[in-house]
Amino acid sequence: MKQTKTILALAAFLSAIGIAKAASDEPISPIKPPASINVGMVELGKKLYFDPRLSKSGFISCNSCHNLSMGGTDNIQTSIGDKWQQGPINAPTVLNSSLNIAQFWDGRAADLRAQAGGPIANPGEMASSHTLAVDVLSSIPDYVYEFRQVFGKDKIDIEQVTTAIAEFEKILVTPGSRFDLWLLGKKDALSRQEEEGYQLFKNAGCVACHNGEAVGGNSFQKMGLVEPYKAASGAEGRSAVTGADADRFNFKVPTLRNVELTYPYFHDGAANTLTEAVDTMGRLQLGRKFTRTENASIVAFLKTLTGEQPRFQLPILPPSSDQTPRPLPFGK
Amino acid sequence: MKQTKTILALAAFLSAIGIAKAASDEPISPIKPPASINVGMVELGKKLYFDPRLSKSGFISCNSCHNLSMGGTDNIQTSIGDKWQQGPINAPTVLNSSLNIAQFWDGRAADLRAQAGGPIANPGEMASSHTLAVDVLSSIPDYVYEFRQVFGKDKIDIEQVTTAIAEFEKILVTPGSRFDLWLLGKKDALSRQEEEGYQLFKNAGCVACHNGEAVGGNSFQKMGLVEPYKAASGAEGRSAVTGADADRFNFKVPTLRNVELTYPYFHDGAANTLTEAVDTMGRLQLGRKFTRTENASIVAFLKTLTGEQPRFQLPILPPSSDQTPRPLPFGK
Repeated sequence: MKQTKTILALAAFLSAIGIAKAASDEPISPIKPPASINVGMVELGKKLYFDPRLSKSGFISCNSCHNLSMGGTDNIQTSIGDKWQQGPINAPTVLNSSLNIAQFWDGRAADLRAQAGGPIANPGEMASSHTLAVDVLSSIPDYVYEFRQVFGKDKIDIEQVTTAIAEFEKILVTPGSRFDLWLLGKKDALSRQEEEGYQLFKNAGCVACHNGEAVGGNSFQKMGLVEPYKAASGAEGRSAVTGADADRFNFKVPTLRNVELTYPYFHDGAANTLTEAVDTMGRLQLGRKFTRTENASIVAFLKTLTGEQPRFQLPILPPSSDQTPRPLPFGK
Repeated sequence: MKQTKTILALAAFLSAIGIAKAASDEPISPIKPPASINVGMVELGKKLYFDPRLSKSGFISCNSCHNLSMGGTDNIQTSIGDKWQQGPINAPTVLNSSLNIAQFWDGRAADLRAQAGGPIANPGEMASSHTLAVDVLSSIPDYVYEFRQVFGKDKIDIEQVTTAIAEFEKILVTPGSRFDLWLLGKKDALSRQEEEGYQLFKNAGCVACHNGEAVGGNSFQKMGLVEPYKAASGAEGRSAVTGADADRFNFKVPTLRNVELTYPYFHDGAANTLTEAVDTMGRLQLGRKFTRTENASIVAFLKTLTGEQPRFQLPILPPSSDQTPRPLPFGK
């Protein structure tokens, strides 16, 4: 009895000074730091992520299109691949991608390991092959030792390469956004406009798709539900994976974490600004025309989703040896 | 008298335990850390160095071709420019470039400030213009504040941009190589083979051009003194700047600091390995065919010139605003 009273008094006190319990009934939850990582593997994966020798040209690394100085994207409508080929789709951010239900806009890779192998061997992206990538790495003594240390195996293989990259990508989460602080009880973390924006984001129905830890990334949805979307890209989305006609124009709902940094927007990168993206989404997905004030509130809320960007030292890559296959940027 | 005796005894003692006085009579001197830098300007310059928005495409930054993960070069024979244009010449390392007599292989820029403006506006490289670059930066609020803080002026101009990049480049020196430790008195820093390689490097005459703090970088010399060099590139060197026929095929002597990391070699990037480069230099510049053992000793010595690579956090770039001119990677 006395204990209950004490707890109630404590709760009243905490509430009075603004430390309320975490709002666990919200449809968005705070980003958690990675629970468990293999530190040596993360360090190796970081080098591989920054190493352009995984591309045929020796010029394109994972970081070229998923630039960790720029919200884990390239901020270009569609990416630039080998020989300046124009990519078919907007590069999604690598930040918080470990929280996605699947990888790529159409979800064709089940996880980050499966994803990492894709661009390396895609003729329109890094244009190498898994064999060549492994040959290159195996010719570099300091990589050989590091792979051996991390994986305890004699020979490097592509699974080790993608496993290390995926392990590095686990640390690319962005906790600590103002919105997360607000969720965690810091009630003055948001301005009135930002909080109004969040209420509108929920009430208007945006949250039906953009929810959970990543504010998206956990379902596939049709682009153009109420009104058809006139895409700047020929990508047809999920149907390319399932073969089902019903899945045409179904795309993975993108995370809205750090959305302030990941412009331009949509799978075709057609929306340059958040204002434009919110307007289009309201009309096409919800059949609702947001007023200027409403739009501005939602945009203000979205900008509170920018978290702490991963901070680490630029990796120094081990040099090629005389035996390393040389890059082929020009000619065949 | 007593003092002299003490000093002599101390010298004998230091010599006995292997701490000799610095070998100030050597033709190569240890790299010094930067004497004085403007810390705020370095931080701003670091961001600019990594910012691909200084290019028309939004894809190419200073770091693309002078990659600080890879010895300050791109390790490609000739660099890749806007729309995958093939550059005319091998990208020289940015490491220790503050020690160069002038910038570019033909020395057409007097200093790093003058250099930094070149690639931004070169249609074959970053393909932007100084006006566009300044417009882009001026549209990004966090850059506007940072320039104001660093330069104390209302408006950003291209001189501030190149000054900040050049200030950042001042910290890209690489002291602490094993060879420098040896010069500084740590006599066990080199193996016998490496020390023999250095003696041969001096005796054979390599040191006539490759000397000083940067082991090069301080003079222009003809490529192909004894035997003509069959270049893979049409670049004619210093004559493009002076107009003098006598300067044809005169190039800035490259620094040999970190040469283990800056392959491929020569202004046309035609030599893939140090073994090949040493052989060619011996024959063409000195009229001397090094034996395999001699070549290996010189290569072993050259690898002792790898210094501590600049270590810093990958910069996080401020996001574009709705007003920022968008990159134009494709089309006009």
